[in-house]
Amino acid sequence: MALIVQKYGGTSLAHADNFKHVARRVAALRDQGHDVVVVVSARGDTTDELLGLALEITPEPDERELDLLLSTGEMVSCALLAMALKALSKEAVSLTGLQAGILTDKAHSKARITGVDPGRIQRELKRGQIVIVAGFQGVTTDMDVTTLGRGGSDTTAVALAARLKAGRCEIYTDVEGVYTADPRIVPEARRLQDIGYEEMLELATYGAKVLHPRAAELGLLYDIPILVASTFVEGPGTLVCKGVTMEAENKVRGIAHDLDVAKITMRGVPDRPGIAAAIFEPLAQANISVDTIVQNASLENVTDLTFTVAKGDLTKAMKVVDKRAKQVGFKQVLADGTLGKVSIVGTGMQHTPGYASKMFRALSDAGVNIHLITTSEVRITCIVDGAKVPLAVRALHEAFELAKPQ
Amino acid sequence: MALIVQKYGGTSLAHADNFKHVARRVAALRDQGHDVVVVVSARGDTTDELLGLALEITPEPDERELDLLLSTGEMVSCALLAMALKALSKEAVSLTGLQAGILTDKAHSKARITGVDPGRIQRELKRGQIVIVAGFQGVTTDMDVTTLGRGGSDTTAVALAARLKAGRCEIYTDVEGVYTADPRIVPEARRLQDIGYEEMLELATYGAKVLHPRAAELGLLYDIPILVASTFVEGPGTLVCKGVTMEAENKVRGIAHDLDVAKITMRGVPDRPGIAAAIFEPLAQANISVDTIVQNASLENVTDLTFTVAKGDLTKAMKVVDKRAKQVGFKQVLADGTLGKVSIVGTGMQHTPGYASKMFRALSDAGVNIHLITTSEVRITCIVDGAKVPLAVRALHEAFELAKPQ
Repeated sequence: MALIVQKYGGTSLAHADNFKHVARRVAALRDQGHDVVVVVSARGDTTDELLGLALEITPEPDERELDLLLSTGEMVSCALLAMALKALSKEAVSLTGLQAGILTDKAHSKARITGVDPGRIQRELKRGQIVIVAGFQGVTTDMDVTTLGRGGSDTTAVALAARLKAGRCEIYTDVEGVYTADPRIVPEARRLQDIGYEEMLELATYGAKVLHPRAAELGLLYDIPILVASTFVEGPGTLVCKGVTMEAENKVRGIAHDLDVAKITMRGVPDRPGIAAAIFEPLAQANISVDTIVQNASLENVTDLTFTVAKGDLTKAMKVVDKRAKQVGFKQVLADGTLGKVSIVGTGMQHTPGYASKMFRALSDAGVNIHLITTSEVRITCIVDGAKVPLAVRALHEAFELAKPQ
Repeated sequence: MALIVQKYGGTSLAHADNFKHVARRVAALRDQGHDVVVVVSARGDTTDELLGLALEITPEPDERELDLLLSTGEMVSCALLAMALKALSKEAVSLTGLQAGILTDKAHSKARITGVDPGRIQRELKRGQIVIVAGFQGVTTDMDVTTLGRGGSDTTAVALAARLKAGRCEIYTDVEGVYTADPRIVPEARRLQDIGYEEMLELATYGAKVLHPRAAELGLLYDIPILVASTFVEGPGTLVCKGVTMEAENKVRGIAHDLDVAKITMRGVPDRPGIAAAIFEPLAQANISVDTIVQNASLENVTDLTFTVAKGDLTKAMKVVDKRAKQVGFKQVLADGTLGKVSIVGTGMQHTPGYASKMFRALSDAGVNIHLITTSEVRITCIVDGAKVPLAVRALHEAFELAKPQ
């Protein structure tokens, strides 16, 4: 009998009935003889409601205080789930991030887990307790409450699974697993039985909202198999793991997309050392996350430089770049806030010819113009017109025959 | 410049505007150069809402889990108030009960404070911070969150004032102070400028919901002057302290009342040693709080025994007593669930003749029949028909000339 870490997200814990449902699931797992640690998110819209309270007080809430405020959402969830389990006559105990020994740095609102002190959880497990842990939160060495930012509860679950040497980590959510593409765009998209960490990382980063990239990274680092499955529909889910099945090697596993892409192009940039730093340092200082960066081959000592940002950051990024334009001397700065991304994701594509050309051909046949291309070990991404993204996803899903069982 | 501990109750912190109002008050105090620690309750109806969530899950929520759940209400308040102060450019820091070093025993839902570790608060004060503490909560030596039960936030405030050797403790609420009687019953009731701890204790126990008796007890024990005043209306409030003004000695200070009184009378009880224990032990085991107990003089080795309980406990108490009646052999058990109490409260009455007789005369003249009489050092209480309580309070307020400035 192994130790299993489960995580239930906010949509799985919206109402009292959800808590009772989750409690029955957890109790059934315990009845099989497993040790069980359950990580919970805040109920439904709680985090947004708490944030709303803060914004009623001040438009820029202090981050330390906001962390304490938001952390209460997960505390409420873990107390309620422990109650629901005890109402089923199961031994259960709730632990806050602090009590569970989730130690973090001091970066409020986006803290990184620096370690897990497993003493309390291990004592409770030894006493036969089901342990319910408030996700998304930790504590600094000064005993200040922090939150982990986006994907925080997923990260808590995988970190605990790693530290406690769990046999498996199970992430329960409102989807049935990882699909070959977003089923809302491609109705014939197929659930994947398993997927590699790096592939999952690319799928998650590029728009699949199933498992947060930070959690997938941790899984990769500590080699924790992560099952992603539905709280509501019984099913096998998708296992994120190292050992992908042999036949899946060198295959496109899925199509990812992202509609939140804006592009800034600087034309006629003097091609001399330090230019890139001069542009991207002030962007970083303005807390703007730059995604894809493409620099064209230099011609007569001037070059074109293009990068993408989230649409919400476009105005701020343009201000920073316009200011630099005068200092550095670009010819022209262009912005386009109507873009999207499509990616084919699969292990080993970079070392196998034919994938890229097949992708470009499929997009071309579908009448989709490509603005930018970037690649990684496990991904080829094209930036295209936002309006063409659904068309592009369907074309690629068909071209790579993803609806067929692999 | 002294250290001042302030406490704001839930009605003072219902909406965002309330938080801003309280923040301005606290900031003004800080601007006078004082060190300030603020204890906060949960916003408005938050505690009831959280309890409602628990009851949706199970009719009998586990007390440890309920404590964690309910404690989040005060955490939300302290984070929001700290944000509001920072929005006014004041240095402020929120602390949970755990962070503030509020140590308690393990009696979940009604924990007692066993000590205060003031290290963190003192460090924050030294750094120039206004310290906002979540009231009503503490932590056990196992780092489990506890709540202090009724009057918990008042108790937190006075305990902190005692441990930090504060110059004063100020309890802000929705009333303007302690009155000679409930102004809703006696329109001409007068606010008292000051009142002794013992007197306050009797007034609070016997129905004045201004300062919780536990807090008044702590104030008495550590000699902490406690100002009770309104959050909303500027005014001097009432100072609860040891040194009541000389002229107030041996005077009736106020009329207290309580409508939640039920009476059980056992007639023909064999008058032998151990009888009282045989009756009251099983009541205590059933967790029924017995208030007044009166035993009549024995006649022919049988006696009458009467006691009062809260109305909500009457049915349960009758079951316990009926069961004993057969074993012990009473003649008759009578119950009356329609009673109330009126008390005159003042220091030194017991040693001064005339107060009791004046009280009985006033009630008699008003046509109020007395069921039971009990006395303490600072109080004379009559149990009367519940319907007659308002009449009785008004008659006593007039007989002791409480509307006149003392």
